[in-house]
Amino acid sequence: MAKGSGMIKPNMATMLAYITTDAPLTSEACDAALRAAVGRTFNRITVDSDTSTNDMCVLMASGGAGGEAIAPADAAFGPVAQAVHLVCGELARMIVRDGEGATKFVEVTVRGAASEHDAELAAFAIADSPLCKTAIFGGDANWGRVAMAIGKSGACVDPGAFDVVFAGIPTCAGGAALPFDEDAAAAALARHEVDIVVDLHVGPDSATVWTCDLSYEYVRINGDYRS
Amino acid sequence: MAKGSGMIKPNMATMLAYITTDAPLTSEACDAALRAAVGRTFNRITVDSDTSTNDMCVLMASGGAGGEAIAPADAAFGPVAQAVHLVCGELARMIVRDGEGATKFVEVTVRGAASEHDAELAAFAIADSPLCKTAIFGGDANWGRVAMAIGKSGACVDPGAFDVVFAGIPTCAGGAALPFDEDAAAAALARHEVDIVVDLHVGPDSATVWTCDLSYEYVRINGDYRS
Repeated sequence: MAKGSGMIKPNMATMLAYITTDAPLTSEACDAALRAAVGRTFNRITVDSDTSTNDMCVLMASGGAGGEAIAPADAAFGPVAQAVHLVCGELARMIVRDGEGATKFVEVTVRGAASEHDAELAAFAIADSPLCKTAIFGGDANWGRVAMAIGKSGACVDPGAFDVVFAGIPTCAGGAALPFDEDAAAAALARHEVDIVVDLHVGPDSATVWTCDLSYEYVRINGDYRS
Repeated sequence: MAKGSGMIKPNMATMLAYITTDAPLTSEACDAALRAAVGRTFNRITVDSDTSTNDMCVLMASGGAGGEAIAPADAAFGPVAQAVHLVCGELARMIVRDGEGATKFVEVTVRGAASEHDAELAAFAIADSPLCKTAIFGGDANWGRVAMAIGKSGACVDPGAFDVVFAGIPTCAGGAALPFDEDAAAAALARHEVDIVVDLHVGPDSATVWTCDLSYEYVRINGDYRS
């Protein structure tokens, strides 16, 4: 179970998430499985870059399934931790789909980064950029705004090396524009799910974050609520 | 002379600024005066948190006024540097007033910070927050969103110590809500200029940044430009 809508860039956010299992996890195993999952699921989503003052994600293991208690070092821990990760990922993405004013669900993947931290910085810079989010709302494969975002992110970027694939359409290779079919791009961006994939070509690491677009409705919900 | 509208969080941004003087500044004096001024003027504005790939601020000194060349160590340097700072500040604030979709000009001051860097972090967190910017667009003295922004900023904050004065109205003291007149707040927020002053009460340093609100028009300009 999870709840969220705006003020979402979990660290945590205005987000309440409860996960239950009947697996007989020890409290150390719950902690280890949940921390690993949250780092790459709930902490990789953003609606508006704003982080709430009150949020939580809890994993409760009843042990109702019976069997030996499962500690982090046990063989059974891996599959359970993987299941926790899957559930966290699904809930996190559901929060983004339900973002305030969202008309598009956006998956941003940065590959070829110098470190996973760099990949995350670059991916969040794209996902949090008002210019990228409004371009997606407007249905434009605006890879220049993606280039701007990775450039300001603080990640190691070689301006002559990066590629951008926007909604399945290669728009930039080696930092330079590629010709692409505007009609195909418009059709791809008309869909409710948009992927942005950037390859920085400077290292081996990657990260994926999830976000939504920035629409009139976001401004209405968060600006006109007093009228 | 300066030009800018969106993609503005100079470091620099899509901003072109040219300043001329007939003072006989040496090139070292130009460099010293401009760097000092830019750090607290152009680099303290934000329209949408997005940083451009191409921007510049140039100071040209013709020496047309005559007299001895002015180097950074000379007595005449101080007044000229102060004049450069004043001009940079006015131009920087004009860029924000001209921000894409802006209906309000917002000055954010953070005092009582542990360092000037902390004050700047907290002030920019408020100025860049979509939730703070939409609240200002909607005319709401929403100090809770200000508290959220300083909390996520990375600056040293004591949750039981900070004060917020929103558009001249004390809304929060010692981290707790103050009663205030809703009609007076609505009238204050209806003006085109809104000040937000936060005192963190954890140190001696302060910083001021300038921004604008986030309106439907920002989304239209940056989302609907293809239609």
